Amino acid sequence: MLDICLLGCGGSMPVPYRYLTSMIVSYKGRKLLIDCGEGTQVSLKMLGWGMKTIDTILFTHFHADHVAGLPGLLLTIANSDRTEPLNIVGPEGLWEVVNGLRVIAPVLPYKINILEFKGQGRTTQKIGDFNINIMSVEHTVPCFAYSLEVPRGRKFDKNSAIKNDIPMIYWNRLQKGEEIYHEGRLLTPQMVRGEERKGLKVSYSTDTRPVEGLKKFINESDIFICEGMYGNDDDISKALDNRHMLFSEAAALAKEGNVKELWLTHFSPSMPNPQEYIKNAQSIFYNTIIGEDRFTKTLNFEN
Amino acid sequence: MLDICLLGCGGSMPVPYRYLTSMIVSYKGRKLLIDCGEGTQVSLKMLGWGMKTIDTILFTHFHADHVAGLPGLLLTIANSDRTEPLNIVGPEGLWEVVNGLRVIAPVLPYKINILEFKGQGRTTQKIGDFNINIMSVEHTVPCFAYSLEVPRGRKFDKNSAIKNDIPMIYWNRLQKGEEIYHEGRLLTPQMVRGEERKGLKVSYSTDTRPVEGLKKFINESDIFICEGMYGNDDDISKALDNRHMLFSEAAALAKEGNVKELWLTHFSPSMPNPQEYIKNAQSIFYNTIIGEDRFTKTLNFEN
Repeated sequence: MLDICLLGCGGSMPVPYRYLTSMIVSYKGRKLLIDCGEGTQVSLKMLGWGMKTIDTILFTHFHADHVAGLPGLLLTIANSDRTEPLNIVGPEGLWEVVNGLRVIAPVLPYKINILEFKGQGRTTQKIGDFNINIMSVEHTVPCFAYSLEVPRGRKFDKNSAIKNDIPMIYWNRLQKGEEIYHEGRLLTPQMVRGEERKGLKVSYSTDTRPVEGLKKFINESDIFICEGMYGNDDDISKALDNRHMLFSEAAALAKEGNVKELWLTHFSPSMPNPQEYIKNAQSIFYNTIIGEDRFTKTLNFEN
Repeated sequence: MLDICLLGCGGSMPVPYRYLTSMIVSYKGRKLLIDCGEGTQVSLKMLGWGMKTIDTILFTHFHADHVAGLPGLLLTIANSDRTEPLNIVGPEGLWEVVNGLRVIAPVLPYKINILEFKGQGRTTQKIGDFNINIMSVEHTVPCFAYSLEVPRGRKFDKNSAIKNDIPMIYWNRLQKGEEIYHEGRLLTPQMVRGEERKGLKVSYSTDTRPVEGLKKFINESDIFICEGMYGNDDDISKALDNRHMLFSEAAALAKEGNVKELWLTHFSPSMPNPQEYIKNAQSIFYNTIIGEDRFTKTLNFEN
């Protein structure tokens, strides 16, 4: 139902053997991208999901390894004949960055909606089928973590439908959220809906220290994609200086956030084989995966 | 002596199997780059010549496939601890493009010298050991062809040195261009220099129709690197519409320009195997090479 792909796993600068950290999700054929470093569009092309249906791009922050691929991607999307508006979301500075980079992509056949969120704290933005939760984290520049939720409608309650005397031909439409006038009476979705059902939740956090609020923000995520800039615990001073995380810190967040699985990404170019350090994460949170370019998973609703 | 590498051979947009068209030359350890699309720095890293000693970047024009990699490259060069100024040369709009893209690379430990040449025609700029000849060509936006010349000093003329009564200890310094006072007399280079010697010439032209002046501009180049957007002569209407060249047109230029060899590059993404069309070039100019990423050659002075 919800397809997730980690387009790249590199941090800091592009290297020959891995693309820069970026993620795409696809739901009902529409797509949302998080971050777009140099080369992200090439990894997207390798993936083959298409680019015309990317409706939204979220930026964590504006270091080049997360944003330099934007103008090229916008032009490639333009080549796909997209005409629908494209949303770009990010922290303070978004407007300036998008307009600066568009010096080489000034004319596009679609509109860009810029949603710049200033200041600290948390907020939620609904775009299409996604509830996009946004939280300020702690990096050297303004930076966001994102948590995407795809809510699921309440269960259909046959007893309630019968009790409310709803003709069977309307059951499905009401369950899907329509309101219907029938013989002078307004039929509403709550007349046929029963208990709540769990949706899907994918959280994404790179370029930050493991700030306190993240545990709650990522709570019960189906997948938590988190930076693991350094695998070795001895690199703690680098992590502190550069506002990044160790594998063990990401794993502690995953454990305390009670997520289902952790995908590590955003590996330092000085760490060609992050698999070497997997124990440093798995000893804290067993269900850890060392990210790889175009590692993909499909999430289904429960039941 | 002069090392030349074609960093990529793709045109229009980055694709998984080839990097975008760009060239680097290295002479006496100093480097000059022409164009820098998305991913050029990755191809540079694969090449392994280093980036700290890139003194000059020439831009043919400002379509994204030739320039989108600039901010990332500037940051990677910054990481190499370069502090010497870096020259960026290009047609009208250069200042705006460099400053727009630098929204994500605002702080660098070295100065950028911007040399923007407006208008049509030809000019020459000397930077380091290179004489950089610049010529306006015909694309959909202002665009330059470049011809790099590495001049060679005149031959040493022993008879002239003896005739001019030059002490032998000064021969080498004078031959290299120094002027020396000796016993009240000014000794000059021309006192020891004889006949002229041929230097090296590498010409580069992408994103243009085969305009008349190019033949003269590239005349007697050791290598002529030229776009071959379309291999098939049937694509002439596309070439005319998009201001690009066929293999056969590039080959005709090479022949009329009396160059030593032609490297074709800037292949359309719709042409995954340009080798298929090599006969369309070789039937006109035999010494044609279908470019490949990181195809490299060393040129030596004659004699």
